[in-house]
Amino acid sequence: MTDRGNEPDRPTLGIIAGGGDVPAIVAAAAAASGRQVCLFPIVGEAGKGVEVYPHHWVRWGEIGRLFDLMAREKVGDVVICGAVNRPDFSAIRVDLGAVLSLPKILSFMVGGDDTVLKNVVRFLEDRGYRVVGAHEIAPELVGGDGDLTRTKPSRDALEDILRGSEASLLLGGLDIGQAAIAIGGRVVAVEGIEGTDELIGRIADLRKRGRLKASGRSGVLVKRAKPQQDLRVDMPTIGPRTVTAAIEAGLAGIVIESGRVMIVDRLETIRLADAGRLFLRAQAFAEGTSFQ
Amino acid sequence: MTDRGNEPDRPTLGIIAGGGDVPAIVAAAAAASGRQVCLFPIVGEAGKGVEVYPHHWVRWGEIGRLFDLMAREKVGDVVICGAVNRPDFSAIRVDLGAVLSLPKILSFMVGGDDTVLKNVVRFLEDRGYRVVGAHEIAPELVGGDGDLTRTKPSRDALEDILRGSEASLLLGGLDIGQAAIAIGGRVVAVEGIEGTDELIGRIADLRKRGRLKASGRSGVLVKRAKPQQDLRVDMPTIGPRTVTAAIEAGLAGIVIESGRVMIVDRLETIRLADAGRLFLRAQAFAEGTSFQ
Repeated sequence: MTDRGNEPDRPTLGIIAGGGDVPAIVAAAAAASGRQVCLFPIVGEAGKGVEVYPHHWVRWGEIGRLFDLMAREKVGDVVICGAVNRPDFSAIRVDLGAVLSLPKILSFMVGGDDTVLKNVVRFLEDRGYRVVGAHEIAPELVGGDGDLTRTKPSRDALEDILRGSEASLLLGGLDIGQAAIAIGGRVVAVEGIEGTDELIGRIADLRKRGRLKASGRSGVLVKRAKPQQDLRVDMPTIGPRTVTAAIEAGLAGIVIESGRVMIVDRLETIRLADAGRLFLRAQAFAEGTSFQ
Repeated sequence: MTDRGNEPDRPTLGIIAGGGDVPAIVAAAAAASGRQVCLFPIVGEAGKGVEVYPHHWVRWGEIGRLFDLMAREKVGDVVICGAVNRPDFSAIRVDLGAVLSLPKILSFMVGGDDTVLKNVVRFLEDRGYRVVGAHEIAPELVGGDGDLTRTKPSRDALEDILRGSEASLLLGGLDIGQAAIAIGGRVVAVEGIEGTDELIGRIADLRKRGRLKASGRSGVLVKRAKPQQDLRVDMPTIGPRTVTAAIEAGLAGIVIESGRVMIVDRLETIRLADAGRLFLRAQAFAEGTSFQ
């Protein structure tokens, strides 16, 4: 889409692309800044929309082909973005590159998500690529600072924000989860591996069963990055589904950490929040938040 | 049941009793040590079994009557024990004592469970009663130290125990929950207000849906008291239901904090665990457990 030549000191930006609107936003931002881009959408994950940019479809497991293509396209920096289903490695057709790398690839799967992603980054860096975060190319992907909705947090919500952020920082420090929900000044639910959508669903469930009094709309979901999280490849995310779930659970709002949580489908996310009178705020958290 | 006279310097032990076997165990232990006891079983909560001891049934809300009865029975120390359903205050018939105390009673309900219980203790202490923990009268109620089952933790389980205990300590410090589950050296679920049974149920659910690989029996539930928890009135508890849920969730074992977690229906709990090849261990945790 960009017909400007690549600047000699700026290698092509390669975008290994999963689903959703993020890869196209990154590509557009890079192209708008005059940068040469080439997408590598993953078959079965990415949407057709990315085909407006220079691209080569790749399949899970075509590691050798991917590296050949990246070399041919003079890719230097790589963004890995978009939603993917964690691949079922037993079903993947592996090419020669993958076979040679297989022990390394299998080792990706050992440990928590953080370990997998760290290994992917190291694998690319070992081959001379620089891994860049989607938000570094397209800062509009992350919540900036302040209220994103017309709906604003009430005074009661401020205490919930504080409690929720304390809890989520501690959880993150232990590599457990990124989110917590506080209601009435008390943390009532904390995220493990079930993920944010199910965390919110738990509140809806507890309220339905009367185990949490549903005194009008109250409670705040706080989501933040783990202190050690590598935001280049593992950015916490919210989107329309998060907002819909929060409204169904009777929450008053969502707070995300400023600059460190991605909003997918941003316009729709904010529209849905305002339509449901849910506030959405991006807020910086001091690392040294006190815990009493 | 005891026909020994009350020693002059040892006032009668009053037992305000909810359901389950704990009130009778406390009464038996006190009586066995030659102490005069009087139970105040709560209608709708306590079982008929306690009627073998001197007792007066009381209803939720009969605060005035309870204090009259305790004075008449020369109660000095009070144990509050047994399972209760959190009362629906709107449905309670209040007597004169309760009416006079109503603002105070309503204030019990503000804040987390800890606050409620602290207020109950203060309410009794303000009236000259000494509040004593069930486990101080009947130490056999809490897990002592070591393996309680014939089934022992495997080497893999030791890492899960460590991770789970780190997480549960942090959660407790924030007054969030008392339990965490670690599998494969990683904390995967942490307790909020949903309680331990539902925490375990989450693992069963994640495994059923394939979101957690169920590679045989693995994973450990760690349950401990919060650092600031008032064990006299708010002792963490496990029992047969916990064990059954843990087996259904495919966990390998349960670790409770030594001396600070109550086992209700102890014999049945241990029998069920061994029958299901689940280990059950009571273990002291250093307060200063390091977090990295």
